[in-house]
Amino acid sequence: MSTDRQSGIIARYREFLPVTEKTPLVSLHEGTTPLIHAANLSKQLGVELYVKYEGLNPTGSFKDRGMVMAVAKAVEEGSTTIMCASTGNTSAAAAAYAARCGLRCIVLIPSGNIALGKLAQAIAYGAEVIAIDGNFDEALNIVREITAKEPITLVNSVNPYRIEGQKTAAFEIVDALGDAPDILAIPVGNAGNITAYWKGFKEYHAAGKAQSRPHMYGFQAAGAAPLVHGEPVPNPETIATAIRIGNPASKDGALNAISESNGLVDSVTDEEILEAYQLLAKSEGVFCEPASAASLAGVIKLHKAGKLPAGAKIACVLTGNGLKDPNIALKLVGSEPRTVPATHEAVMNLVRQQEKEVSS
Amino acid sequence: MSTDRQSGIIARYREFLPVTEKTPLVSLHEGTTPLIHAANLSKQLGVELYVKYEGLNPTGSFKDRGMVMAVAKAVEEGSTTIMCASTGNTSAAAAAYAARCGLRCIVLIPSGNIALGKLAQAIAYGAEVIAIDGNFDEALNIVREITAKEPITLVNSVNPYRIEGQKTAAFEIVDALGDAPDILAIPVGNAGNITAYWKGFKEYHAAGKAQSRPHMYGFQAAGAAPLVHGEPVPNPETIATAIRIGNPASKDGALNAISESNGLVDSVTDEEILEAYQLLAKSEGVFCEPASAASLAGVIKLHKAGKLPAGAKIACVLTGNGLKDPNIALKLVGSEPRTVPATHEAVMNLVRQQEKEVSS
Repeated sequence: MSTDRQSGIIARYREFLPVTEKTPLVSLHEGTTPLIHAANLSKQLGVELYVKYEGLNPTGSFKDRGMVMAVAKAVEEGSTTIMCASTGNTSAAAAAYAARCGLRCIVLIPSGNIALGKLAQAIAYGAEVIAIDGNFDEALNIVREITAKEPITLVNSVNPYRIEGQKTAAFEIVDALGDAPDILAIPVGNAGNITAYWKGFKEYHAAGKAQSRPHMYGFQAAGAAPLVHGEPVPNPETIATAIRIGNPASKDGALNAISESNGLVDSVTDEEILEAYQLLAKSEGVFCEPASAASLAGVIKLHKAGKLPAGAKIACVLTGNGLKDPNIALKLVGSEPRTVPATHEAVMNLVRQQEKEVSS
Repeated sequence: MSTDRQSGIIARYREFLPVTEKTPLVSLHEGTTPLIHAANLSKQLGVELYVKYEGLNPTGSFKDRGMVMAVAKAVEEGSTTIMCASTGNTSAAAAAYAARCGLRCIVLIPSGNIALGKLAQAIAYGAEVIAIDGNFDEALNIVREITAKEPITLVNSVNPYRIEGQKTAAFEIVDALGDAPDILAIPVGNAGNITAYWKGFKEYHAAGKAQSRPHMYGFQAAGAAPLVHGEPVPNPETIATAIRIGNPASKDGALNAISESNGLVDSVTDEEILEAYQLLAKSEGVFCEPASAASLAGVIKLHKAGKLPAGAKIACVLTGNGLKDPNIALKLVGSEPRTVPATHEAVMNLVRQQEKEVSS
């Protein structure tokens, strides 16, 4: 299977997707994201570690894979408007593919305390953003009601084409490694992505494209870990906003993936997430969203507990680009850079001083 | 030539690069960025328009291509520290590849009025940022002085390996199209990139990989257009910060590219840049940095003046990711989203009202 970046996932994987003769080959060249070998972390952890850097999708997150499929089917079915409730990556992906196809895109968000920065992309792509006097669940309910009655296509994760598109990331990992990894580590929020990856690995295995299937290791943020606790979390809290979900829509898919693959689900604290987030940037040169780092944080936690099989081939899914939330990086540093006079002596003095600080 | 994203530019194009047996195959899987067909804009302009979306490089800009080459050579030469003066994309690329290779990375910036957001990436990748009591030119001079005396490698654009790496983007355009485009449109700031593209097109043509070479069309911001005016601009001003340069380091390379290719250099206003920036997002679903949009703004300007050959195959270089500067998108909108009660009737009323506003 080619990993050529001159086509998108629908053209490349059409035999595995719900594509008909009438499905338009919509594409922003999503997918074909790099599977980067993490040489430094591999040594530290005694495993063969790779990261699937989904932040290099067109709008900066894995959501593009599912959205291109959902929007292509919307166009095929004659829809001219799509709608979702989202304050983050879903709205960016929906807005971009709607722009590409000349569709209207309506994004519903809860009013009050709106982080406009998170919506900058959707707004840039021309989405119509509407705030409601209510919370996120109410926004999603309104979207469901409207799309059930009006000729408007729902593109939140309950749209079944989303998971179909997302499963192509599993295909790419197998294509890059020549087989499935031993372990697939993935952040779990709404649980659609772990469901999609497992579907992908199973289908590729059944088609003879892979000789094995991975163990699926899902990691939730400690303050938003309904699958770990076995019950919904009423007020989920974590710095990893993209997985701050108390009652995952795809709970059953996730539990099935974990059970069928002889995998596991575990939680990681915000501190562990931020440590992994910094490690990825500083040890490997890979900048991801905080939520993305939950996968590596989980792998590190298992390593510390002696529960990681030595030499295992592990792929960590990094769901989004660090540029989506640059303020986190700045908060971790906290202070302004040190200022010195504009002479090369003053600069070199500080350079030498900092070298000593690092090595001491 | 493969466009496989499982390798970086050094492995893929080594025969065209200053690579020896000792050059390490450093990579964050840079390059292989999509060349996206802009179907809607092609129709509007009566040409065959493509955009080379360099924002999907690992750190979000074309700088990764040159930096991976500069850092690989630094490692080959035994260097353990790299240094640059930069407040933007260069510092991010330098810091990421330094992290990947275990090098120290020192970034010099002018003090005062520091937009820390622009430095978030470099900081995340672990660069040591030092502010000097002086302006950017003084920072660059100090970097030149220090790297001339100390065992520290200069990775600003005067490092010749930068242009070598950057020329691979021209190879990829030819690989994707099967030949060079008729016109290559590109933003011009420090002028290293237009110099690099032209070098790439010439080398590929000489090697028989392309049958033709493009006309090179360079576009500068009207407030920072030294090549258009034929003299340096003392206080360059433009919203397109990545090309806000009054005295380009690679001026001669740019003028040579334009003259040898029978091309042109022209300027575009900030208004034209922002219009093109919005068009790309809203018509094609491609979100780039404001400076990137200078290439399309120039093409549109020529079209309006009747100077664009009908049916020409044009590739516009989009140098960086829109996520690098999301505030611009928000400023263009200006206002908070409209808020309505949390009922599906209230939302649908607004949806219908907005539909009328758009069509009227």
